[in-house]
Amino acid sequence: MVDPTENESLIGAHTLKAFDEDLDQLRALISQMGGLAEHQIRESMRCLTQRDIEGARKVVEADRRLDELETETERRAIETIALRAPLAGDLRDVVAALKISNVVERIGDYAKNIARRVEELESAPAIEPLSLMPEMARIATEMVHDVLNAFVERDAETALRVARRDQAVDDFYNSIFRTLLTHMMEDSHNIGHATQLLFVAKNIERVGDHATNIAEMVYYAATGGRMADALNADDTV
Amino acid sequence: MVDPTENESLIGAHTLKAFDEDLDQLRALISQMGGLAEHQIRESMRCLTQRDIEGARKVVEADRRLDELETETERRAIETIALRAPLAGDLRDVVAALKISNVVERIGDYAKNIARRVEELESAPAIEPLSLMPEMARIATEMVHDVLNAFVERDAETALRVARRDQAVDDFYNSIFRTLLTHMMEDSHNIGHATQLLFVAKNIERVGDHATNIAEMVYYAATGGRMADALNADDTV
Repeated sequence: MVDPTENESLIGAHTLKAFDEDLDQLRALISQMGGLAEHQIRESMRCLTQRDIEGARKVVEADRRLDELETETERRAIETIALRAPLAGDLRDVVAALKISNVVERIGDYAKNIARRVEELESAPAIEPLSLMPEMARIATEMVHDVLNAFVERDAETALRVARRDQAVDDFYNSIFRTLLTHMMEDSHNIGHATQLLFVAKNIERVGDHATNIAEMVYYAATGGRMADALNADDTV
Repeated sequence: MVDPTENESLIGAHTLKAFDEDLDQLRALISQMGGLAEHQIRESMRCLTQRDIEGARKVVEADRRLDELETETERRAIETIALRAPLAGDLRDVVAALKISNVVERIGDYAKNIARRVEELESAPAIEPLSLMPEMARIATEMVHDVLNAFVERDAETALRVARRDQAVDDFYNSIFRTLLTHMMEDSHNIGHATQLLFVAKNIERVGDHATNIAEMVYYAATGGRMADALNADDTV
């Protein structure tokens, strides 16, 4: 007869291994979503600056793939919670995966929103905000990239660094906002497309905000503590 | 000796009752969040039209309460899944609660965003978009109210009706957008505040979108089917 204690610990080890595999799959799904969202933002910027209407249509269509991946992540996360009944720290990881996939899907929505404005901006003159925006988007996309790596690596320090970089995106936004207003005031012919560009800039700024939200979730999943406390500690140094 | 079958069904009945109580609590939390989000939108509109800067500050502060309620809903939803291991339809209800609380929290963020613009709009002239916006917000808020009732009542029909009403909010948005552009073109002094109002209108339009998203979740939780199919069936009549 098998020693019941040994049997129990075997079951425990089996559940643990199954849980780790589940979590690895969730992380892989989120990496995949992140790669796709980054690509979508970059493509929407390329289409905007090169006035590629056909490319913009493809960005809009490709967003559906992100929606599907989010649904898949959600299904697996819920299944993991229901089947493995993870405790404390493990449960925090699964819930973080669930929430992060939702935020990445929203980041994809911003790429789609930007792509949808490309057609209306086809005849826009090459004003300087148009050349600043890809750089602003590059920083925001890098934040998304780094924070998702931080999630996979459970790296609270990188998450903190990502959150600190959001100020650069906000500075870009404020500068672009002011410049666009000036363009509108100088020539009322600029008002139509400058308004469209305002919304584009706002969308990129929101990508930075969302990367920061993910940073907070990663920080909490990795440490159980609030990132705001760590950032406030910064300020007092 | 107790009949084991009877004992088992007692345990089953107990788990079922506990699950129903959990779900009722989740629904109560979401109703509470919904009531607060509606109030926040209405208040942000009142502060905007009455230029009540102090009131707007209170709206911004009160948003924290919605964040707390979302965290609480999330905690309880996860706990319910982990403890009661609900199946199929029941699990759909809990996941819907989890996702809906997230969307209601975002609706609250729009109220906060609107309230934050009140100060910059203090000296704005009383142009007509300012009087159209509260009516647009009223429809959007009503959609939020009705769709959350539909969630509590598991009422797929009401959810469908809410989704159909989103077109009215979009029509308001397009009309306000065009009017604001005209104001900017007529007088460049209008550009600053008209830009702020563009973002306000966009925020209200997003509230309608989010109510529609919730309608889709309610429809799915109640029927297991996709709302898009039901709406397409409409079009072919």
